[in-house]
Amino acid sequence: MKIRMINPNASAGMARLLDAAGQRVKAADTALEVIHLPASVASIEGAADGVQAAFHLLPAVARGQAEGVQGFVIACFDDTGLDAARELAEGPVIGIGEAAMHAASMLSVRYSVLTSLPRSIHIIERNMRAYGLDRRCARVHAADIPVLELERDPAHYQRLLALGRQILEQDRSECLVLGCAGMSQWARPLQDALGAPVIDGVQVALKWVESLVGLGLGTSKLLSYRAPLQKQS
Amino acid sequence: MKIRMINPNASAGMARLLDAAGQRVKAADTALEVIHLPASVASIEGAADGVQAAFHLLPAVARGQAEGVQGFVIACFDDTGLDAARELAEGPVIGIGEAAMHAASMLSVRYSVLTSLPRSIHIIERNMRAYGLDRRCARVHAADIPVLELERDPAHYQRLLALGRQILEQDRSECLVLGCAGMSQWARPLQDALGAPVIDGVQVALKWVESLVGLGLGTSKLLSYRAPLQKQS
Amino acid sequence: MKIRMINPNASAGMARLLDAAGQRVKAADTALEVIHLPASVASIEGAADGVQAAFHLLPAVARGQAEGVQGFVIACFDDTGLDAARELAEGPVIGIGEAAMHAASMLSVRYSVLTSLPRSIHIIERNMRAYGLDRRCARVHAADIPVLELERDPAHYQRLLALGRQILEQDRSECLVLGCAGMSQWARPLQDALGAPVIDGVQVALKWVESLVGLGLGTSKLLSYRAPLQKQS
Amino acid sequence: MKIRMINPNASAGMARLLDAAGQRVKAADTALEVIHLPASVASIEGAADGVQAAFHLLPAVARGQAEGVQGFVIACFDDTGLDAARELAEGPVIGIGEAAMHAASMLSVRYSVLTSLPRSIHIIERNMRAYGLDRRCARVHAADIPVLELERDPAHYQRLLALGRQILEQDRSECLVLGCAGMSQWARPLQDALGAPVIDGVQVALKWVESLVGLGLGTSKLLSYRAPLQKQS
Amino acid sequence: MKIRMINPNASAGMARLLDAAGQRVKAADTALEVIHLPASVASIEGAADGVQAAFHLLPAVARGQAEGVQGFVIACFDDTGLDAARELAEGPVIGIGEAAMHAASMLSVRYSVLTSLPRSIHIIERNMRAYGLDRRCARVHAADIPVLELERDPAHYQRLLALGRQILEQDRSECLVLGCAGMSQWARPLQDALGAPVIDGVQVALKWVESLVGLGLGTSKLLSYRAPLQKQS
Amino acid sequence: MKIRMINPNASAGMARLLDAAGQRVKAADTALEVIHLPASVASIEGAADGVQAAFHLLPAVARGQAEGVQGFVIACFDDTGLDAARELAEGPVIGIGEAAMHAASMLSVRYSVLTSLPRSIHIIERNMRAYGLDRRCARVHAADIPVLELERDPAHYQRLLALGRQILEQDRSECLVLGCAGMSQWARPLQDALGAPVIDGVQVALKWVESLVGLGLGTSKLLSYRAPLQKQS
Repeated sequence: MKIRMINPNASAGMARLLDAAGQRVKAADTALEVIHLPASVASIEGAADGVQAAFHLLPAVARGQAEGVQGFVIACFDDTGLDAARELAEGPVIGIGEAAMHAASMLSVRYSVLTSLPRSIHIIERNMRAYGLDRRCARVHAADIPVLELERDPAHYQRLLALGRQILEQDRSECLVLGCAGMSQWARPLQDALGAPVIDGVQVALKWVESLVGLGLGTSKLLSYRAPLQKQS
Repeated sequence: MKIRMINPNASAGMARLLDAAGQRVKAADTALEVIHLPASVASIEGAADGVQAAFHLLPAVARGQAEGVQGFVIACFDDTGLDAARELAEGPVIGIGEAAMHAASMLSVRYSVLTSLPRSIHIIERNMRAYGLDRRCARVHAADIPVLELERDPAHYQRLLALGRQILEQDRSECLVLGCAGMSQWARPLQDALGAPVIDGVQVALKWVESLVGLGLGTSKLLSYRAPLQKQS
Repeated sequence: MKIRMINPNASAGMARLLDAAGQRVKAADTALEVIHLPASVASIEGAADGVQAAFHLLPAVARGQAEGVQGFVIACFDDTGLDAARELAEGPVIGIGEAAMHAASMLSVRYSVLTSLPRSIHIIERNMRAYGLDRRCARVHAADIPVLELERDPAHYQRLLALGRQILEQDRSECLVLGCAGMSQWARPLQDALGAPVIDGVQVALKWVESLVGLGLGTSKLLSYRAPLQKQS
Repeated sequence: MKIRMINPNASAGMARLLDAAGQRVKAADTALEVIHLPASVASIEGAADGVQAAFHLLPAVARGQAEGVQGFVIACFDDTGLDAARELAEGPVIGIGEAAMHAASMLSVRYSVLTSLPRSIHIIERNMRAYGLDRRCARVHAADIPVLELERDPAHYQRLLALGRQILEQDRSECLVLGCAGMSQWARPLQDALGAPVIDGVQVALKWVESLVGLGLGTSKLLSYRAPLQKQS
Repeated sequence: MKIRMINPNASAGMARLLDAAGQRVKAADTALEVIHLPASVASIEGAADGVQAAFHLLPAVARGQAEGVQGFVIACFDDTGLDAARELAEGPVIGIGEAAMHAASMLSVRYSVLTSLPRSIHIIERNMRAYGLDRRCARVHAADIPVLELERDPAHYQRLLALGRQILEQDRSECLVLGCAGMSQWARPLQDALGAPVIDGVQVALKWVESLVGLGLGTSKLLSYRAPLQKQS
Repeated sequence: MKIRMINPNASAGMARLLDAAGQRVKAADTALEVIHLPASVASIEGAADGVQAAFHLLPAVARGQAEGVQGFVIACFDDTGLDAARELAEGPVIGIGEAAMHAASMLSVRYSVLTSLPRSIHIIERNMRAYGLDRRCARVHAADIPVLELERDPAHYQRLLALGRQILEQDRSECLVLGCAGMSQWARPLQDALGAPVIDGVQVALKWVESLVGLGLGTSKLLSYRAPLQKQS
């Protein structure tokens, strides 16, 4: 099974982290390729960055589709360009934000999200509302650590742990969703320390794409996600 | 990986169908056992049937937990006894109703549900609202075929196909969710005929439980799903 | 008029308290019988307990129906087994949770609920959302007192009073709903002390069942609450 | 117990009908007085009529309060002036619209409303949303019969019956709420003919006000419904 | 263009403030007349006051309509009598509450409201929910300053400023909506001090009414806002 | 006052139509410039087109901001790139979709949208839900006419008129929102023919941007719409 995970920013370092996480959990017969987008923004911190990233994402999805990729993961918690990517792909396309939030609502009655920067909160809240999953979410918090810092400085773990404790307590939440692909590597130690599920959307999205492809399920091409129209010139 | 799928009614025949579906799609290293509950109701058609089924489901979950089962699928589209089962299990517990509806909302912008009997509609609608997934659902329809009839008479396929066509058209829906475990075997032919994703929650739930167990994720035991309290006597 | 109030747990003591409350407020021509379910759980603290209780509730409703009972009160704030009970009864069936919350929304613009244990909060919140009454509810709180303790130790009143004061203040609420049948006896003194309506669902549900029966209104048997189907054997 | 039902329009004829309905169902020890407001509009058909009626309603409530009235029913399905009336009363004040809709949601999973004129639909829908009860309502319909016609021409019954049949069918509803005080007298025959609960808010509101007064419950005076402030002059 | 702004209370002083604000921002060719209602309540603080004000508002709208007024502003943040006024007018009728909240949701992702008295909060919240704009509102706060005090004592500015700072911080809001016509004069200095948009509905409503009139848009007279029916006598 | 209206597709013809509409209704002292984006897609029909358009929109907004533009209109009914554009602008940025829907909810109790292509419906519905304005919208319809056809063939007017009639009737709507910038020129004749407000967001958005700029109101730069972060290199 041919799966592609796209890190929609320009960070090769983050792609390596994602690749490490993905190769560890993928099925034996999955050919997983993790790519980043060198022409995209260095990191996605807000809506304008998201527009840049989505623009560079689309040809990568189209290329994947042409190369026979059967399912895609979009590895940014903002689910950047998700609907547009679905127009270009036949197989399932899952964003790590939606994957994590759907999973959280099957493992707990109430979850909280911890993302990197405060300016991303409204984007996550808007997605969540579109998915309907805001009803199960207590609140979206920001650690106030830039995305690339997360990747560069593992010492941020202590701050995430302290915040996680405080959030579960204050929000009466029972599950923590990590709101940034760059936090992926800390999901397991945080879960062990907090005694509650800590969800990394990267891993969940990858496994769910594998699942759906394996079951013969893909993106509906009936109307909304049909391929873009060719324009009259 | 030890997974148990529980058909919460008393039908051995339906359990055999579920087992066939499950064995076909499970991972190689998954030990899947599909059980039914001989003391339960013959089929779950309404809330009183659901109470009976949930009552017989709980000891089966407790026994599974004692036997080292790592994840459970509840194979009734009403997600019968789901919250209660989560109190007894450590691993993930997924209902086929929720699995199908979560999947539908990642493969389409708008889905419809086709269940067996009209009296189940309000139960499904209530669950859907609790999950937040009503926003993406156009409508829940009933084929008006009793659950056990579905299993016994494959000729019902033609009726499901005709209804499926009509529903996608009238509801402006882009994905069809099969709202009864007994429809599982028709998911693929319906999908091929309708040209839109047709989702069988049995298969999706099984694969997602496998995914979550594999990632080390289980039911949050922090509060709401903690084990039942021992009573003072 | 023949009314039956069912305490769906096994506590005879709580049934006696409920009986005392009920006999005091019932209409002169109401024949009220309060029963408990000796085979049920000692108290309902969570979803698994609720499944047990609902299972034992159903034959009690069926028996009542056969004996000519015209209306039922389910005396657990979780409204345990409510939909299932309605399938078995012809007359109205009201849960004390719904009664209290409906009343609160006609006496105030914003109410809060104070229940016994934190693990019950999500059950009440889910019911409330199904009824639509979450819009008027500020928050559900738990006193963290086990149900049977409430009944056994009247000294808990002081704690409820302190919590009630704090809740109205912090939530900007104008009405307090007592979220446990075992708090029934303290409704009046709390109301006098707090200077705001304090609602005990036991009394409200009883009077409303009387009202509806008196007006010739019963449970709709048109579809969703129709009697359970007889199964093919 | 001293209860006053206020018909907020100027129709003495409608007040007589309401009085007949009320005297028939009230408790033996209830002193029920039904009044109309001669200076008000002839009937309440839209928001401007509602403002007129509310204006004339307030002194009637204030007078009732001064005369020791313990509970009020506002007998217009629009629940005209309800919040304002609550500022003036100590006891419960219930509108027939809210009473009927709350009752419907305890007797069925899904109800429809049949009111007199199309222009009232948006007012009822707005109230319903404020109460949270829109989730249980399929749709609000209008018979397109002016309010006073209803009262004058009993031949309208056949039209209501035909509409009721059609509405329950088309809306998949299980309960019919009569959306106008002037339809009160037809609740019972419609219920008998339709085989589903048909709810007249006049009777329900009266019985519920009796219930709440009897239980010592009144309008919260903590903040929002506090008596109007005296103005500096 | 002939525009009338109606202060629905009896305060000539507030009308003068409104007139000053309006004349400053109106278009050159707008003939703006600001009136107050001498027979109305001195200030609108709660629902009963609102009923009085709406009653006196209606003839003023009818008179304006007869005099050729092309658009109306209702200058009370509660949007007193708004729906009723629309039945009497042909042109647009905008309340300052709705104008401010609509504007806030186009200038920020999340706004808070600061009104005068706590008893008005539930009225504003109910309107907001009817408009759909509650989703973007963090919370409605009250400065606890009576309406006429605001007008009389400019020293209240310091209190509003301190509250504004605290509200933006605590609510994670990005825009402050002034919830009382009497705060109009402080919008600009507050905005300069807070570094975030501070919205005065008086000015926005006036400009928007001008806009809509200029574009040939008026109140829909198709059904709900049709002129009140003439009554049979 | 310097206002820029951006047609985010590549059609110079549509920009000319927008310019004609804008120059006709702008204030005398407004310097309005209407631009299109030659490198963008020919028309925006779906999410992938939207990503392209948003990408080309951002430098145009940045340039405008640098040139002293005080307010922006985004002239695509999908409100393409709206949040991202707000990060780049200091003044107000209004999309024609949101403007039309906000206006509709102040002129009617219930509106319908008529857009060009069915595949745009879900995008409009998602925006509408984010704005909260779905509560007032009956339904979004598509005329099934490609965007550029609208512009090229004025004969489409008859089809729009017939659809408008049918929509208002079937949806019980009282206001029609034109869901495509290319329909702008038909707003007035449709309004005259339908006897109900027909709203063209192009004109409304322009006037409202003028209004907000004139009142000194701009986009909140407090957090979510702050300028994009400069990346570390």
